Amino acid sequence: MHAYRSHTCAQLTAANVDQTVRLSGWVHRVRDHGGVLFIDLRDHYGITQILADSDSPAFDALEKVRSEWVISIDGRVKTRDAAMINPKLPTGEIEVYITDMRVLGAADELPLPVFGDQEYPEETRLTYRFLDLRREGLHNKMMLRSNVVRSIRNRMWDSGFTEFQTPIITASSPEGARDFLVPSRLHPGKFYALPQAPQQFKQLIMVAGFDRYFQIAPCFRDEDPRADRSPTDFYQLDLEMSFVEQEDVFAAIQPVVQGIFEEFGGGRKVDADWPQISYRDAALWYGTDKPDLRNPIKMQVVSEHFRNSGFAIFAKLLENDGTEIRAIPAPGGGSRKFCDRMNAFAQSQGLPGMGYIFWRAGAEGMEAAGPLAKNIGPERTEAIRAELGLGEGDAAFFLGGKPAQFEAVAGRARTEIGRELGLIDEGSFKFAWIVDFPMYEKDPETGKIDFSHNPFSMPQGGMEALSGDPLNVLGYQYDLACNGYELISGAIRNHQPDIMYKAFEIAGYPASEVDKRFGGMVKAFRYGAPPHGGCAAGIDRIVMLLADEANIREVIMFPMNQRAEDLLLGAPSEPTNEQLRDLSLRVAPKA
Amino acid sequence: MHAYRSHTCAQLTAANVDQTVRLSGWVHRVRDHGGVLFIDLRDHYGITQILADSDSPAFDALEKVRSEWVISIDGRVKTRDAAMINPKLPTGEIEVYITDMRVLGAADELPLPVFGDQEYPEETRLTYRFLDLRREGLHNKMMLRSNVVRSIRNRMWDSGFTEFQTPIITASSPEGARDFLVPSRLHPGKFYALPQAPQQFKQLIMVAGFDRYFQIAPCFRDEDPRADRSPTDFYQLDLEMSFVEQEDVFAAIQPVVQGIFEEFGGGRKVDADWPQISYRDAALWYGTDKPDLRNPIKMQVVSEHFRNSGFAIFAKLLENDGTEIRAIPAPGGGSRKFCDRMNAFAQSQGLPGMGYIFWRAGAEGMEAAGPLAKNIGPERTEAIRAELGLGEGDAAFFLGGKPAQFEAVAGRARTEIGRELGLIDEGSFKFAWIVDFPMYEKDPETGKIDFSHNPFSMPQGGMEALSGDPLNVLGYQYDLACNGYELISGAIRNHQPDIMYKAFEIAGYPASEVDKRFGGMVKAFRYGAPPHGGCAAGIDRIVMLLADEANIREVIMFPMNQRAEDLLLGAPSEPTNEQLRDLSLRVAPKA
Repeated sequence: MHAYRSHTCAQLTAANVDQTVRLSGWVHRVRDHGGVLFIDLRDHYGITQILADSDSPAFDALEKVRSEWVISIDGRVKTRDAAMINPKLPTGEIEVYITDMRVLGAADELPLPVFGDQEYPEETRLTYRFLDLRREGLHNKMMLRSNVVRSIRNRMWDSGFTEFQTPIITASSPEGARDFLVPSRLHPGKFYALPQAPQQFKQLIMVAGFDRYFQIAPCFRDEDPRADRSPTDFYQLDLEMSFVEQEDVFAAIQPVVQGIFEEFGGGRKVDADWPQISYRDAALWYGTDKPDLRNPIKMQVVSEHFRNSGFAIFAKLLENDGTEIRAIPAPGGGSRKFCDRMNAFAQSQGLPGMGYIFWRAGAEGMEAAGPLAKNIGPERTEAIRAELGLGEGDAAFFLGGKPAQFEAVAGRARTEIGRELGLIDEGSFKFAWIVDFPMYEKDPETGKIDFSHNPFSMPQGGMEALSGDPLNVLGYQYDLACNGYELISGAIRNHQPDIMYKAFEIAGYPASEVDKRFGGMVKAFRYGAPPHGGCAAGIDRIVMLLADEANIREVIMFPMNQRAEDLLLGAPSEPTNEQLRDLSLRVAPKA
Repeated sequence: MHAYRSHTCAQLTAANVDQTVRLSGWVHRVRDHGGVLFIDLRDHYGITQILADSDSPAFDALEKVRSEWVISIDGRVKTRDAAMINPKLPTGEIEVYITDMRVLGAADELPLPVFGDQEYPEETRLTYRFLDLRREGLHNKMMLRSNVVRSIRNRMWDSGFTEFQTPIITASSPEGARDFLVPSRLHPGKFYALPQAPQQFKQLIMVAGFDRYFQIAPCFRDEDPRADRSPTDFYQLDLEMSFVEQEDVFAAIQPVVQGIFEEFGGGRKVDADWPQISYRDAALWYGTDKPDLRNPIKMQVVSEHFRNSGFAIFAKLLENDGTEIRAIPAPGGGSRKFCDRMNAFAQSQGLPGMGYIFWRAGAEGMEAAGPLAKNIGPERTEAIRAELGLGEGDAAFFLGGKPAQFEAVAGRARTEIGRELGLIDEGSFKFAWIVDFPMYEKDPETGKIDFSHNPFSMPQGGMEALSGDPLNVLGYQYDLACNGYELISGAIRNHQPDIMYKAFEIAGYPASEVDKRFGGMVKAFRYGAPPHGGCAAGIDRIVMLLADEANIREVIMFPMNQRAEDLLLGAPSEPTNEQLRDLSLRVAPKA
């Protein structure tokens, strides 16, 4: 017989009754039923009930065994009494009568129990991650992540993509965040960088003539900690394609992502209709470029109803250039209490408040209520109601000013309203491509023009568009929003050196700066570059959505804490003097 | 029609004749046949011949096109003249008559041609890697690597392993090489390390209750450059299993590796018999722990034939403790010229030389020749011949002394003899597990006992064995040798803290040092650790063997040069003052 096991803890069934077997695993739970010891023996695969009474030669040794000891037992498979059959376990029909037991790995007093659902502080959980990972919930989330990554890979291969590994110790590949640096020992005073993304490499792979690249790629950004991101490394599905337009990228990635959500979504509805929404419309309708479309609320411009109206604040506002009044319809929100609460929410977000109208049953049928309705009068109120498609029991909120100043809060109010009113279809995944991002934005203070997103994207209209007003230039750049998160970001790249220099020049970067920072890539574009584009999807984020988990540390095997420390192995740590000497470095004294 | 292509450059056949198509790709080769331009248009998938004569509206524009420009053409598919059919190309029956052409990406004068096989200096090739990668040979090697990795992954999943990603920015995980360090910005003066291997993490994954882990894992070692290794990062197939013995690991990995070699070996014979050879026998028989078994030569101890013989040098030698005489049989090496050349080889490797005997046709049948034969006389000479199974036309070489002093040279002589005599079965892959590595070795100068290989391996015989002579302790540690290379290294791990402390104590490390360096892992072993073991296989090495390629840079997409520099993107580079300030670092002035 095998030294440790003839079967796993999930294998034995009624078909094995009377067989002599060997099992190994962790002592999940011990129950002492007066002279009979029942142990749930657990391994990666499942749980098998094993038992011994005082007739068993192993009984005395078993009495000493505690939770989470690793043991190996020999025994005979028996049918359980009918009353004891557990239909939820694959092994629920049998139990194993123990004839021999060996301790393979004893356990000290546990700082964190494995059996049971008790909450523990995250510091303890991270320090004893190997125990926390034995718990069913976390164990399953790790398996989910692994299976998701596997399925993504297979789907990408099946779609004609090839996976290539790109360098990790390399040159800086700026993506807008801070680089992690790696000092070079062979070149004193010089540093490598860990890639923020394989952006330049994947573009070089296209220039090198490979047609469809992907990689489950580790990315490194030295960012300030935040609950929903890893402070060091994270993974993305990175892909790039040659000879494509934006629609080709969408057509390639949608089946992969949709398929993953269908496969691992646990029955939640996966929307197959992925609308394309311009960046401008997304801002107007949803107040964000990552809208949650499970929330049916769509904001609208209602400026005309307030122009020269009796509501002086809005009427005055509208006399200034670039101002608007927008409405957030709130079906089912038609009570003063609710409206006041939402108004308070807007105030908590830094706005003076939100005007509102709500429609309720009155003595003579439906009536509009709220101070705003009074100010603008019944005609305008009714026109607004009709335009928003609302009725009795509904409400509408109004925000005014320059959109940039209230848009984000409007978006959050939309979310809050949707959540409070139970409008969000929780059991579903809804996707939208956000397209037509502006290439440039103007700093409101300095008036300086800079890239608003990725400087490597191809401007729509190419060179010609760049000779007009930069603020009107849109990029072939796109994000995929899912349930309020940005899941994918990508672009058709600017593969033409002359257009690239021009694009950078507009943002204030001379050619010399472009050559200095992206010289390798720009050089490559001078030797026959194909049109190309692609995108990157956040693996951690996909798994978080599938696991319905807001904490990124629940979907990473060995995460850092929020201070970017590894509590289990102890990192970061002081270097030795020899290491510093090897690297020609000194730690600067504290300022 | 699609903006760039209706077909790839490998798709069109006689079935498409008369269709209007659009193709995009690189201008591989232009031939001007007096008024007719023939262009081989190349993309990732293949080559299609396109042409234009002066009747074509695109003719003038096409005349300006040069090698490696990226163009898109519209045209009509035509059957080639019978004489022009190229049966080697999938598209060899057709050509496309060009009616329209657009330049998608022009190319400057090429520093490195893509068409043709001309050799170029490696510096040029690395600086213009994107051009070099377009060449068929390198392109194919990248595809080979990618397909190999994919197949390994599928085979591992099919064998019940799960892939988990382990941290890259982490704590030092010493494997005997130098760490790459990453300074922490949030914790001034502290550093992370990049893992030399995921050794501690994979063991923690076992302690966390996952049964069979694997990963195509990036590993980072700051080693001095060498032609056959990457100076920064490299990849290994890393695996670990719980509740296993050595044989279980062998049984798990052999089908994977054998399958890969069968799938990608290009018809070379893949030996299915993987003998297990002890470290001691490997040293004796082959002079190395990574023997090339395609070479049939097996060395033997022949001390007894020389004890008290007339060959005074060996006879004297054998009076000292620990000395031996070993023979290298050389079937077919029976000429003085060959024997002298091999003797000179041994001298070039730092030995005084190798004695030899060879057997040739004499006046009265076979006769033994060489000075050694004369000294020991015909009886001993004949006994040696019989024992080595040699005959007329063969030779044997002899080395004597303490094995440690000549073993390595004997191994190289064996290789040289095998190669010179054409004994090596080049068209095959032969594998052997090298087992029973000694746990400890004694420094010949200091007399200090230290680990000879992996300190985390379980000593054979456990705690009991550690109370005897450390130099007699063998470990459950193993390597897989293939064609003279170490392909895999692994061990059954020491999962018991008491045995681990004892093992380290023998090598001079107090418990405090163990806790300091491996505290996280040892702590984990105190909370119910299963017996476990595994191994790691070098991905780069596997691909190099399959591609029959000695230069590791030929199997990596974007390799560093041998000075650990990225010539394409420019790394390492000077940090900015701001970066150094962020990291609280100063570069030490040159000593």
